[in-house]
Amino acid sequence: MNSNQLHVTNSNLPKAVYRALKKICGKDILTDQSDRSAYSYDNSRTQKAPDAVIFARNTKQIGQIVKVCFQHKIPIVARGRGTGTVGGSVPLHNGIVISFEHMNQILEINPDNRFLVAEPGVTNTQVQQAAAEFGFFWAPDPTSADYCSIGGNLGFNSAGPRAVKYGTTRENTLGLEAITGNGEFIKTGVYTSKGVVGYDLTRLLIGSEGTLALITQATLKLTPIAELTQTIQLFYKDIDSAALAVVAIMRQSVVPSALEFIDKECIKLIKNYKPDIRIPADAKAMLMVSVDGLKDCLESSIDAILTAAENPGIISKNIAYKESEAKEIWQARKALSPALRNIAPKKINEDVVVPISNIPTLIHELEKISTESTIPIVNFGHAGNGNIHVNLLIDTDNQKQMENAESCLDQVFDLVIRLRGTLSGEHGVGIEKRDYIERELNPASLDLMRKIKKQFDPHNILNPDKLLPDA
Amino acid sequence: MNSNQLHVTNSNLPKAVYRALKKICGKDILTDQSDRSAYSYDNSRTQKAPDAVIFARNTKQIGQIVKVCFQHKIPIVARGRGTGTVGGSVPLHNGIVISFEHMNQILEINPDNRFLVAEPGVTNTQVQQAAAEFGFFWAPDPTSADYCSIGGNLGFNSAGPRAVKYGTTRENTLGLEAITGNGEFIKTGVYTSKGVVGYDLTRLLIGSEGTLALITQATLKLTPIAELTQTIQLFYKDIDSAALAVVAIMRQSVVPSALEFIDKECIKLIKNYKPDIRIPADAKAMLMVSVDGLKDCLESSIDAILTAAENPGIISKNIAYKESEAKEIWQARKALSPALRNIAPKKINEDVVVPISNIPTLIHELEKISTESTIPIVNFGHAGNGNIHVNLLIDTDNQKQMENAESCLDQVFDLVIRLRGTLSGEHGVGIEKRDYIERELNPASLDLMRKIKKQFDPHNILNPDKLLPDA
Repeated sequence: MNSNQLHVTNSNLPKAVYRALKKICGKDILTDQSDRSAYSYDNSRTQKAPDAVIFARNTKQIGQIVKVCFQHKIPIVARGRGTGTVGGSVPLHNGIVISFEHMNQILEINPDNRFLVAEPGVTNTQVQQAAAEFGFFWAPDPTSADYCSIGGNLGFNSAGPRAVKYGTTRENTLGLEAITGNGEFIKTGVYTSKGVVGYDLTRLLIGSEGTLALITQATLKLTPIAELTQTIQLFYKDIDSAALAVVAIMRQSVVPSALEFIDKECIKLIKNYKPDIRIPADAKAMLMVSVDGLKDCLESSIDAILTAAENPGIISKNIAYKESEAKEIWQARKALSPALRNIAPKKINEDVVVPISNIPTLIHELEKISTESTIPIVNFGHAGNGNIHVNLLIDTDNQKQMENAESCLDQVFDLVIRLRGTLSGEHGVGIEKRDYIERELNPASLDLMRKIKKQFDPHNILNPDKLLPDA
Repeated sequence: MNSNQLHVTNSNLPKAVYRALKKICGKDILTDQSDRSAYSYDNSRTQKAPDAVIFARNTKQIGQIVKVCFQHKIPIVARGRGTGTVGGSVPLHNGIVISFEHMNQILEINPDNRFLVAEPGVTNTQVQQAAAEFGFFWAPDPTSADYCSIGGNLGFNSAGPRAVKYGTTRENTLGLEAITGNGEFIKTGVYTSKGVVGYDLTRLLIGSEGTLALITQATLKLTPIAELTQTIQLFYKDIDSAALAVVAIMRQSVVPSALEFIDKECIKLIKNYKPDIRIPADAKAMLMVSVDGLKDCLESSIDAILTAAENPGIISKNIAYKESEAKEIWQARKALSPALRNIAPKKINEDVVVPISNIPTLIHELEKISTESTIPIVNFGHAGNGNIHVNLLIDTDNQKQMENAESCLDQVFDLVIRLRGTLSGEHGVGIEKRDYIERELNPASLDLMRKIKKQFDPHNILNPDKLLPDA
């Protein structure tokens, strides 16, 4: 069966399992077909219905649920809000989806020690709001922040524009509580910004996509909000000049709080979608650079950025001093997503990373791949990290494009590896990239990952067949 | 036998093993008693001679050496420069010490992509010098930087004053190459500042104290050097006021590049050791705060720090604008180490961490423990991280102190755990803290660590009996 198709049959949960889980979960276990299909998908192209959906309530209860599933070898897939793009929360082998949406409490805010303890179902924005009341933020800022949960952020090491200065989920989490695949409770990490006792299980769980343990609580590291943030918009005549500026900006000491980029194909799309947005006629690349800090420092900081950004390829620069100006220069970037959705609702969005000086080669080679495959490719992303969202705008009615899609993706990934890059910067592996990661990881490392998985999850019930390809 | 005593007998290496290793290593394998005793210790109280010392030359050769040792179950202890304080590089069960001192090449400096690739035997200072030529530094800055190797820094997740702003080794390493306990070559991580493909083996190896694999190469993340650094010296009438200032400084948005503290006992020592150093008579705590950034920004940044540092307990503040002034205010801090060595050459230096708002309780409780045990305790350290170096100044000729030492240490560790702290911030576990870590780690986590160790090192030959206590 094609795993991409939605597959909802009658619940196949053995009666003994259902009875045991019902006893633990009461009304929090759902087996109606409609409920099961509502939890059958994420933001990828794969759908599969679970046999049952369980709303998790607390760590102890999750331990009991996992023990039952461990005993009967029933697969468990952890689900935050299903905003993932790689099929990470799709129950490939049916079984149980554990939804964390009701474990949505912030348990402690400790401003003196700059941490916040939360359940995994709290959304990223709820964390930001709670932290902001005390003058803090949590660094990870994925686009889906309003809706995605921190459980998902932890599972996929999520990040966003701010990562260039403030790091990803990995650098902003102090400790975790979790239930392993045999129902054991583990507590990892510390409440402090330093600690080196035992192996780093915290970072091992972060980005493990629910394959090692179910995260039930997290201690997040908070950062004080800067006094002011200002944004600069820069247009360049070609990608090479823009990339030169990115390298120069990252080589000087004022680290931008965002350093985003869009390529010429994106600019074209934006121009078509919203012709009134001001973009120079000859612009073939745009950078958006944010700088934050003390009010009194921002002028010097912006000067330092502008000096680094200067090169013969620069066409124009706009600095937003007022909020209205900021709004205007963000228009171009913000028009991109709807413009893309408009033209290619079924786009494939990859989130590859390359060393920043290799961005021009990446883009030029992608142009060739695009021409050969006849698949339009548009690129934008977090240039300061070299994290480029490569979008294949496949028209599903175009037979030639559909035929070329796989080989096109194949070439993209090969290219990224050749440029010393990585296949994913923030979306993760899930199902979508599982069969490609052997190109990046060496065999002995992959073998160790499989062995580690077995220690955490001896019956292979936690999100089976995700992340790691078959041995 | 007491493991603290030096134990050099004739080399016990089985002849077949010696012959196999000799074939691989040639003149790089040493078995003379004098050579073996030179590699029998680190900066802890434990000494034990290996059966042989091998100077590692390259990754491939290390793979061959480990394969021989794996086959014959010969223990291997990786050694950087032996500056560790917890016995991490002491060959507890004899066997082989692999010294990395000749694998001391910087293999690549990539300023455009802000990374540096080095062999593990390169010293921290050599990395800093090589990076500085391109305007960069590597964040970890242990006191022993001039002598310690990055291999050791990686093994113990080393850090220093700069960690408060720039993070520890964990946050500043992109990828590793290593040989596991069965001689397999693994490559972990990426060349970029983001990446989420597979489990995070890089962070798993960092801080694993040579128990999982021998690190043979590292890709280090570089940071641009700030235009200017200035330092402020602050005196307080009590530890509570100083700690209040630490919390307030860490709650505002100008993150100091160092936030060091010394307590009243340290101040006493310094005054006795160098009476001419200017310290206010009623000072019972001192903070040293460094701020770095653009020249034009530093005044506002220092203002922000001073505002946060202000409270009724502040006695005086000295800002170093010129280099001569900086030299003067660092005198007090720099006099501390020789003063300590002078008075208590056999001090026990613990590097516990507590949430910063718990620093006053820690210090007050330590005073009580000190009084009860009659062991003088002096405290200083990286206050911004809550990483306090607790020094037990035990006089080995004082029978009562010697009798109380163990229970004193015991109480210190219990106190730290009660205050939501961790037993080590940067020194690691090794032999010295191995039997205490069960107080901090939950049983299932510790069990998983043991299982992970077994996957990397099936015959338990890599630094056996370090870090993890017996099951």
